[in-house]
Amino acid sequence: MDWLRWRAEHTPEREVLRFEGRSWSFGELDREVSLLARRLAVLSVGEGDRLAVLLSPGPLFVQAVHAVGRLGAVLVPLNTRLAAPELVWQLKDVEARLLLYDEVSAPQAEAIAARLPGLAAIRGGRLDAVAPADVPLRFQLDPAAVHTIVYTSGTTGRPKGAQLTYGNHGWSALVSALNLGLSPDDRWLAPMPLFHVGGLAILFRSVIYGIPTLLQPRFDPDAVHRAIDVEGATLLSVVSAMLARMLEVRGGRPYPPSLRAVLVGGGPAPQPLLDAAARLGMPVVPTYGLTETSSQVTTLAPGEAPRRPGSSGRPLFGVELRIEQDDRPQPPGEPGEIAVRGPTVMAGYFRRPEESARALAGGWLHTGDLGYLDPEGYLYVLDRREDLIVSGGENVYPAEVEAALLAHPAVLEAGVTGVPDPRWGQAVLAAVRLRPGARVTEEEIRGFCRERLAGYKVPAHVRFVDALPRNAAGKLLRRRLAD
Amino acid sequence: MDWLRWRAEHTPEREVLRFEGRSWSFGELDREVSLLARRLAVLSVGEGDRLAVLLSPGPLFVQAVHAVGRLGAVLVPLNTRLAAPELVWQLKDVEARLLLYDEVSAPQAEAIAARLPGLAAIRGGRLDAVAPADVPLRFQLDPAAVHTIVYTSGTTGRPKGAQLTYGNHGWSALVSALNLGLSPDDRWLAPMPLFHVGGLAILFRSVIYGIPTLLQPRFDPDAVHRAIDVEGATLLSVVSAMLARMLEVRGGRPYPPSLRAVLVGGGPAPQPLLDAAARLGMPVVPTYGLTETSSQVTTLAPGEAPRRPGSSGRPLFGVELRIEQDDRPQPPGEPGEIAVRGPTVMAGYFRRPEESARALAGGWLHTGDLGYLDPEGYLYVLDRREDLIVSGGENVYPAEVEAALLAHPAVLEAGVTGVPDPRWGQAVLAAVRLRPGARVTEEEIRGFCRERLAGYKVPAHVRFVDALPRNAAGKLLRRRLAD
Repeated sequence: MDWLRWRAEHTPEREVLRFEGRSWSFGELDREVSLLARRLAVLSVGEGDRLAVLLSPGPLFVQAVHAVGRLGAVLVPLNTRLAAPELVWQLKDVEARLLLYDEVSAPQAEAIAARLPGLAAIRGGRLDAVAPADVPLRFQLDPAAVHTIVYTSGTTGRPKGAQLTYGNHGWSALVSALNLGLSPDDRWLAPMPLFHVGGLAILFRSVIYGIPTLLQPRFDPDAVHRAIDVEGATLLSVVSAMLARMLEVRGGRPYPPSLRAVLVGGGPAPQPLLDAAARLGMPVVPTYGLTETSSQVTTLAPGEAPRRPGSSGRPLFGVELRIEQDDRPQPPGEPGEIAVRGPTVMAGYFRRPEESARALAGGWLHTGDLGYLDPEGYLYVLDRREDLIVSGGENVYPAEVEAALLAHPAVLEAGVTGVPDPRWGQAVLAAVRLRPGARVTEEEIRGFCRERLAGYKVPAHVRFVDALPRNAAGKLLRRRLAD
Repeated sequence: MDWLRWRAEHTPEREVLRFEGRSWSFGELDREVSLLARRLAVLSVGEGDRLAVLLSPGPLFVQAVHAVGRLGAVLVPLNTRLAAPELVWQLKDVEARLLLYDEVSAPQAEAIAARLPGLAAIRGGRLDAVAPADVPLRFQLDPAAVHTIVYTSGTTGRPKGAQLTYGNHGWSALVSALNLGLSPDDRWLAPMPLFHVGGLAILFRSVIYGIPTLLQPRFDPDAVHRAIDVEGATLLSVVSAMLARMLEVRGGRPYPPSLRAVLVGGGPAPQPLLDAAARLGMPVVPTYGLTETSSQVTTLAPGEAPRRPGSSGRPLFGVELRIEQDDRPQPPGEPGEIAVRGPTVMAGYFRRPEESARALAGGWLHTGDLGYLDPEGYLYVLDRREDLIVSGGENVYPAEVEAALLAHPAVLEAGVTGVPDPRWGQAVLAAVRLRPGARVTEEEIRGFCRERLAGYKVPAHVRFVDALPRNAAGKLLRRRLAD
């Protein structure tokens, strides 16, 4: 049975969502979802159709997540930070039947709709005027059916639509609870976009666990702190840039013990940042995940972080991990490409048989990320494979150099990439953002690195910058550093 | 991936099993399981074959549970308390390839084998002499594949082999944790046979959660108390007869807070017994389940029992329940047949297409049990449908009369059934076992009931007995009461 409907029948009064001072019970959300489904049916969304949403975090997004299943349709959550041509490309690629957007995205959505005459589009606020159709809704759930097509954030190549099934989302939620534990009083704080799996997965956990999502319209460190200190958030998902902002404004005030785990994803978090959070009593739980695996692949267990600096933890139950070099599994300690297998791995890319076959060759998802396992199976993520710098025949992992830079007291953020070099093939370039008021020379930075790193890893070039290039998810875009 | 193998790769050192002073880690058990699989292969157990086991609780049973999957075979756990003709019938019905038995069952097993010339049989102790075959083992897991064929306890008709899949067992374990919660320090105490799903399910939870089973060779209330008081058992599964024995020998000593939930299954437990357990600080959690649903269907949440006397709780996540009368769902408060749907419901009876179709008509498992739901969806189990007494056109639920009898201070156990009556069709007969030393007359018992029950429910006949007929699982066999 449809997870939300099950909740509505069994725990109708329990809270499922809190947003901008309003609260929804499972029963209320269920009614709204059926209503939305009946309206979408009028707008000719039916079995197998793709419903694209260009929505900020809010109740309409949550409703859409659950409404598609009742129509046998598939949700395509679009990244609201993308430019119009990128969105047009994705909407064409996925052959969306309808685009649902909100006030904030209206100018963007309307410009796009004008360029795609075949695409129907409706603003969320206008749904009220659509008389719901008395169509039969589906409440049975097929674990093998695709629920979502999520375009991968596109740091390389053209974006591809990863197809995530109900089974993928369900297993992910269930085994996440085996790792983090579960309490009936849990409340999951989501201060992030819902169009990435990191945010979307919270909505599935919410219905499966029977706990509320505390949803925030955008990341605001003060609002996050209010939810933690006052509203009793027990679980929180963030990317490291958000964590850094939180600590900047926290002013050293400890976090309450009610906050029992903070999932830190979206790329490796700098160890000094995790250490600073832990000093304030924040139970940080680094995680490694991707769109193609419905979020978490590996996650530390609560309390493990201090003993496992730099690690992203071990695989969730049932998920397998191996490190490959030339398609052969590597022993502990040897770096290589991270490969993943198991019930959370996507059902291929939408209408990309060749790219799907390549990505899933041999039954393993080849992530394009580099890392190694320690003898106990804990994962250490190094870099995206395409971020690897080869200088004078030696491999340089940008994340390792960035970690050294971040250990310098004057450095707030750092990004490292390779630039063409006539002698070494590539040379290491570091972009460094200093703390406000800090002063340090390029030579001091290089000297500091020289004490910590092999000579070939020390940045040949250091640039001081005001901001680092990041994508919509807050991930560092290393290939843009050279610009 | 095979759940045990996943554990062996990821948490090899963690404890999976404790039995008679010995302890096994996941890594050790995994090696023993592969060894057993390779030996079974020599004994020609292969893909699709049925391996029947006639084993007391112990490591060999646990190994067999995990070994079958590595051969693509199916486990048939036989009830060691059955008579030889019953076992012969089941072994023929299931067309077992091999019968694996132990010392205790040897006379029984050897007599059976003599009557089934086509059946190979081996005593566990002789496995060491079998040189393991170097066959390829399977470590991939197909959720739709059948793992177990469990013959239903057979209180009615001929036993039928309920086929339980990996998906059934896995979902059951995962959603049980959503209800009971999960702690890395959990230890599940199993003082019951493993051939019923109630015991078998503990073994699956153990590998999925990564926690040990504290397995006991037979039910012994002192050993159970030692495991709770000294060995740190946090979870316990019992049937109500076991619970009664425990309280008898406990002498009023409270249970430690480390014991965080006691699943009480195997038929409705008398409320006075649950109350007495709760007074000693035992966190009783009544549950309703069947073989065909891979154990729990409904379970109270920890702490709910005092506020929900008589209830077996609400369905586990994803499991649906309805009460049917003439195939129509009944409103809250109306009794009818309990029907169940969801991911824990069996894949039909082995080679019984007609009985499977009847049991699963309309996609719902028709349990043959009677009960009703309260307005909040809590289940109250009344009786097996075939135990229902119709007296003068009125329905009498034996469990209700038994509950009234058990409220009498002199009554230790009670069983109620219908006997032919020329005037009323059926009359109510009660079999009562008194507490040691208690004295009470039939008329006193009837008078006590008359204060609590409608006249047509008051037993027309009261018999004082030394023991009540129960099946191997401890379930009361009401139809034998009249004998």
